[in-house]
Amino acid sequence: MFTYEYPRPAVTTDCVIFGFDGGELKVLLIERTSTTYNDFWALPGGFINMDEDAEACARRILKEETSLENIYIEQLYTFSDIDRDPRYRVISIAYYALVKLSDYFIYAGRGVNHIQWFSLSEVPTLAFDHAGILEMAKQRLKGKIKYQPVGFELLPEKFTLPELHRLYEIILETSLDRRNFRKKILGTNLLIDYNELVKNVPNRAAKLYGFDKQKYEELSENGFYFDCEHI
Amino acid sequence: MFTYEYPRPAVTTDCVIFGFDGGELKVLLIERTSTTYNDFWALPGGFINMDEDAEACARRILKEETSLENIYIEQLYTFSDIDRDPRYRVISIAYYALVKLSDYFIYAGRGVNHIQWFSLSEVPTLAFDHAGILEMAKQRLKGKIKYQPVGFELLPEKFTLPELHRLYEIILETSLDRRNFRKKILGTNLLIDYNELVKNVPNRAAKLYGFDKQKYEELSENGFYFDCEHI
Repeated sequence: MFTYEYPRPAVTTDCVIFGFDGGELKVLLIERTSTTYNDFWALPGGFINMDEDAEACARRILKEETSLENIYIEQLYTFSDIDRDPRYRVISIAYYALVKLSDYFIYAGRGVNHIQWFSLSEVPTLAFDHAGILEMAKQRLKGKIKYQPVGFELLPEKFTLPELHRLYEIILETSLDRRNFRKKILGTNLLIDYNELVKNVPNRAAKLYGFDKQKYEELSENGFYFDCEHI
Repeated sequence: MFTYEYPRPAVTTDCVIFGFDGGELKVLLIERTSTTYNDFWALPGGFINMDEDAEACARRILKEETSLENIYIEQLYTFSDIDRDPRYRVISIAYYALVKLSDYFIYAGRGVNHIQWFSLSEVPTLAFDHAGILEMAKQRLKGKIKYQPVGFELLPEKFTLPELHRLYEIILETSLDRRNFRKKILGTNLLIDYNELVKNVPNRAAKLYGFDKQKYEELSENGFYFDCEHI
């Protein structure tokens, strides 16, 4: 047992992991086995140890519960509503990440019944305030796409403009004119034209593109403005 | 005494309050009276209570220590390095805010020796990891100014273009061509021309401007791009 002069909240981390499979943006969820919210789906997360900082905690638990590791995670927000956990006072430091679905095998680890990628349109009722955490991560991504290039972490090395177009539409939750999108995204000089066509499709095969890594990093650092309002 | 099955970190909030006096961007600091970092300057901050969320805690402590209240604060980042506090494990949820210096009286409250607005160029050695927290707040402000209008919270109702120009230069830590800045900022339609001149100055009196509140809110919400790199 651990004794303190003043009461202390418990501290957890939770992770919103977005993955793209070419057609849908998905989020990685675990099915809980705990007594609280038993059988509910939730974001991967758990309690912080005294010998790790919040990011290390988020990484450790993500690995334990889902086997995901070596991904770039970013702090999203700290959630501290008084009754967000029915057991006792718990403050959660949330992280989020973008990954290529095809790059990772996942399996249900410690304290987890099942694990699954859910389309954002089919997310089940979530435990705790996790629906709110997921919503904030979606909004953050939506804001970020205006000022930073997004897609490098979500798309395969070679992709088509229709795939990139679809990704932007999903993140922005709106439809974007195909031709205007094409013009604007090519205008950023962010893309490399591989001069290759998608193989094994009958006709009108789409061209394959990749990201210019140097340009991508430059724009990520300095920011730019992708005026999504006028597409 | 409070007893738990697993060890828990203590949780605090800290606030970076930026104020502008027309010529300098300043930060509000308190001089500590605690046994740890005694006599050191620090950001206003303290331990969270079990019946308040993090923002309520930040507001309560800010009021107790500095008398500042009714200001808009925004969560900055949660700092969780293992040894950021020499006493024991403490995780701090940091907030930041922008205020007009002239609007607020401050006085040293509970547990505070002195309180003072410091120019960013004259910040003393700070307690804990507060120098790092302050640095992140500066970077956040620097990033924000590219995508959202900034100044409404920092400038008096009526201000001159040289004052706004100075504010942007300070936040961006660079010099901006006077004429280009003028052209760009007027091009945003963000400013109202009051058709008034600063009174009681001999000659070449500067014109007074204000922010168009509706336009300001619209741009704050939707974002825009103020291309500071090319001024």
